[in-house]
Amino acid sequence: MTATRLCRTFQTAPAAVPRDDSAKFLVSGLTSEGFQTPDWLVPDIEDGTAPSMKAEAVDNVVEHLPEHAPDFAGRVLPRVEWAYDDATFRERGREQIDRLATEVGDHLDGFVVPKVGRLDDVRDAAGAIAEAERDAGLADGVLDMAIILETAPARSDLREICAFAADSRLSALVFGPVDYTAELGGRALDGERPRWDGLLEALSNETSAAGVAAIGGPFDQLFCERAGVTYYNAAGYADQVEHEATIGIDGSWSLHPKQTSQANRIHMPRTDELTEALGKVEAFNEAKREGTGAVVVDGQMVDEATYKNFANTVETVRAVDETHPTQTAQYYEAGLLERALSVELRFN
Amino acid sequence: MTATRLCRTFQTAPAAVPRDDSAKFLVSGLTSEGFQTPDWLVPDIEDGTAPSMKAEAVDNVVEHLPEHAPDFAGRVLPRVEWAYDDATFRERGREQIDRLATEVGDHLDGFVVPKVGRLDDVRDAAGAIAEAERDAGLADGVLDMAIILETAPARSDLREICAFAADSRLSALVFGPVDYTAELGGRALDGERPRWDGLLEALSNETSAAGVAAIGGPFDQLFCERAGVTYYNAAGYADQVEHEATIGIDGSWSLHPKQTSQANRIHMPRTDELTEALGKVEAFNEAKREGTGAVVVDGQMVDEATYKNFANTVETVRAVDETHPTQTAQYYEAGLLERALSVELRFN
Amino acid sequence: MTATRLCRTFQTAPAAVPRDDSAKFLVSGLTSEGFQTPDWLVPDIEDGTAPSMKAEAVDNVVEHLPEHAPDFAGRVLPRVEWAYDDATFRERGREQIDRLATEVGDHLDGFVVPKVGRLDDVRDAAGAIAEAERDAGLADGVLDMAIILETAPARSDLREICAFAADSRLSALVFGPVDYTAELGGRALDGERPRWDGLLEALSNETSAAGVAAIGGPFDQLFCERAGVTYYNAAGYADQVEHEATIGIDGSWSLHPKQTSQANRIHMPRTDELTEALGKVEAFNEAKREGTGAVVVDGQMVDEATYKNFANTVETVRAVDETHPTQTAQYYEAGLLERALSVELRFN
Repeated sequence: MTATRLCRTFQTAPAAVPRDDSAKFLVSGLTSEGFQTPDWLVPDIEDGTAPSMKAEAVDNVVEHLPEHAPDFAGRVLPRVEWAYDDATFRERGREQIDRLATEVGDHLDGFVVPKVGRLDDVRDAAGAIAEAERDAGLADGVLDMAIILETAPARSDLREICAFAADSRLSALVFGPVDYTAELGGRALDGERPRWDGLLEALSNETSAAGVAAIGGPFDQLFCERAGVTYYNAAGYADQVEHEATIGIDGSWSLHPKQTSQANRIHMPRTDELTEALGKVEAFNEAKREGTGAVVVDGQMVDEATYKNFANTVETVRAVDETHPTQTAQYYEAGLLERALSVELRFN
Repeated sequence: MTATRLCRTFQTAPAAVPRDDSAKFLVSGLTSEGFQTPDWLVPDIEDGTAPSMKAEAVDNVVEHLPEHAPDFAGRVLPRVEWAYDDATFRERGREQIDRLATEVGDHLDGFVVPKVGRLDDVRDAAGAIAEAERDAGLADGVLDMAIILETAPARSDLREICAFAADSRLSALVFGPVDYTAELGGRALDGERPRWDGLLEALSNETSAAGVAAIGGPFDQLFCERAGVTYYNAAGYADQVEHEATIGIDGSWSLHPKQTSQANRIHMPRTDELTEALGKVEAFNEAKREGTGAVVVDGQMVDEATYKNFANTVETVRAVDETHPTQTAQYYEAGLLERALSVELRFN
Repeated sequence: MTATRLCRTFQTAPAAVPRDDSAKFLVSGLTSEGFQTPDWLVPDIEDGTAPSMKAEAVDNVVEHLPEHAPDFAGRVLPRVEWAYDDATFRERGREQIDRLATEVGDHLDGFVVPKVGRLDDVRDAAGAIAEAERDAGLADGVLDMAIILETAPARSDLREICAFAADSRLSALVFGPVDYTAELGGRALDGERPRWDGLLEALSNETSAAGVAAIGGPFDQLFCERAGVTYYNAAGYADQVEHEATIGIDGSWSLHPKQTSQANRIHMPRTDELTEALGKVEAFNEAKREGTGAVVVDGQMVDEATYKNFANTVETVRAVDETHPTQTAQYYEAGLLERALSVELRFN
């Protein structure tokens, strides 16, 4: 994860729900506070919104973004409809992209496109956004694209899709395990879906090679029950998010403010990680000032690659602080945070 | 798995064994009944038949197919000899394919080709079948091909081989773990072969993207012993087959009628799966009759993709019923089966 | 593993350490005895040598190879500096390769190049060795190349890199899990790195398809502590090496003579494996002498592929015996070894 593409949390919120206030979850996402504010808020016009409410979902986004997006700390990328194997969905997706870019393009950071197929289909989706961008008079490339990786052909073309991402508006790949398992004909015989370890490993590798973000799939066992008491499944979700962090998946899908609150924390550098990174960077800066030739810190040479890793940890903290200062203030001791914000980050 | 390529069970039967009746297992496979009838019977002229009996194995297939194949409910695809790295085997394989196509081509559904290598070798095998088909005066493309995925070059070319399959007579890929492990130099130091999870996941994905069938490898620990009593290892085989079903492998390899009997059941839609699918399809049909615009069933929009999934479950039951009515009659409650056989399956 | 590229053990030894005798570990590696002699000794000029000692590390290799290499049973391939994303490292690597090829080229078997990227970068590294070889007046292709697989782009191009290996001086791929995990952004949240099973499986497959060697990553938990006593972690390392052998990884990375001693044994055919291979080969030879047509041993036809597997086991023992006779003498009963050394190994 590079700091410029901070996406610890990818929170979907249905853009319309069957209530008096159909934009309830959209607005609560846009006005969330503290650790409940996601890095990416994804107003969901696709699977999270009932079929009869799609039009109202788009209306809700058009209506509420101008009011709330300017004060929202994260980025906003609606998920539109799309399907590599169904032209009707692609047509609807193009209309949704067009209307949103035209009417609230200034308040959008991009679009999330689900159920893409092979590279050609991904190119088509990117083309639809480019066209909408032009028609809306927006600057070229200002709208990002994320795709949901949830079909067999997209998994088959993962390497080519990531090569395309390295050089296009495609900036994140998000795993969609439910549709993926259905498309492969997998059956939850014992109630458990496979984790698809091979896919996750390849996703982490190819997105790293392309310099784009990788996001894990949703965790839908939000609540547990034991002896008649229902409680939030904090342990189950944290286990999944920690596993994702371990294998280099940059961010996690959230379905609930509590999940956002956990994943925002887990994907932040921990105090010990930040302390080590700052120590290395500060010692490097000191050695540079003293004109020592090779810069060795604690017996380890700090070369450009090593420096970049430590600097990246500090820059991630800065990126979080810039957009979510209440999170950094709450998470780090004041002196440590101050050092992170003030240290010089320049290799040469 | 599409219903047209029903392959819950891929049962190999040695085409000649060293007994007075050398065709014993071939004939018992061809005359099996009930749940012991496999979807594919594979008379094995390759590794299952002793080297000295290859000619007799081909003779047995030529002799017994005309009598038993017409009444056999499944498909018949003999496994011939082949090896990407040994021209002698390929020459023998071509002769076996030629002779069988010429003499009993009308009773065959295709051939299983083992130890293929890179895409070029797979094309060669397909070409050998095309040539035999022509020479035998059979209709173009009437003979299918399945390959055993059991060499490093074939695994390396898996994606390209499946792209070829999407547009050729190649209609199934079957995993061959014993030869595969040997070719990679794997050693069973603790008596256990690796499961090769990465290969199985890729096999499920690429065959799904190509629309062809994926079949798991054989399970050879047929029997267990405990305290002096030997018994059929029903649990071990069912565990493997259920794992295959979980990750979207369409069918399982069987070495024994009892294994066939288990895998036929595990790869059938369960009663709860069929009940759900029928409920959705029937409600969709009802809504369509009433002229409701968007068709929503239980709050879920039934789009073409969703409909296809449910319809596919029903079609699988119909395909089983068409070829193995004793299996469906035994497995499903009569009313449920009747609904599956009579419901209208048409999206538009 | 083919016998001609015997690499059970890939032992790195820092080429210069901050001691009075800075070549201590280099020389002890070159003068190791018995099972502590690795098949490949890798004088480490890269990460194993402190930045301030790189020049001294190259000097040490130049100084000590002429004295010790002629009597060293294994092969010697120094690890030089390199990085696909940093031209400074590549420049230093070229200088190290040039100087070593020119001054001690006759005592070298090749070079180990770390942190390579996509295929183009691997070609560049091979080109640097080719150029140095020419400039040093060495025979074309006499110097092998091994690469460390430890970056996202190299993993992405693994298949293409192995295809290149099949036809070039690239003869081994070695896994580098520490840098690989860092590059993917993986975090050791619970102190454990992922094992990267998908990568290892692909590495075993692609190197097998290309006919080159695959080597596992280092195991750095050399010692354990319990109740105040520190002891060598023999079990942890053996577990990793056995897992590697199980999935067809040909050899293991060693950081210590004790690790070399274990991995040399684990990657040798066991007595039961050698006994079986010899039995098959001898029975085959007997049958051939008697002029039996098809050669069947214990009911199994010994075809060329089967014969090659058994012959390869015997040839591995011969290769070990040729270079490390004290190891074979200690490991095998004398009669068995004598049979392995004297049996005729010729299929036709």
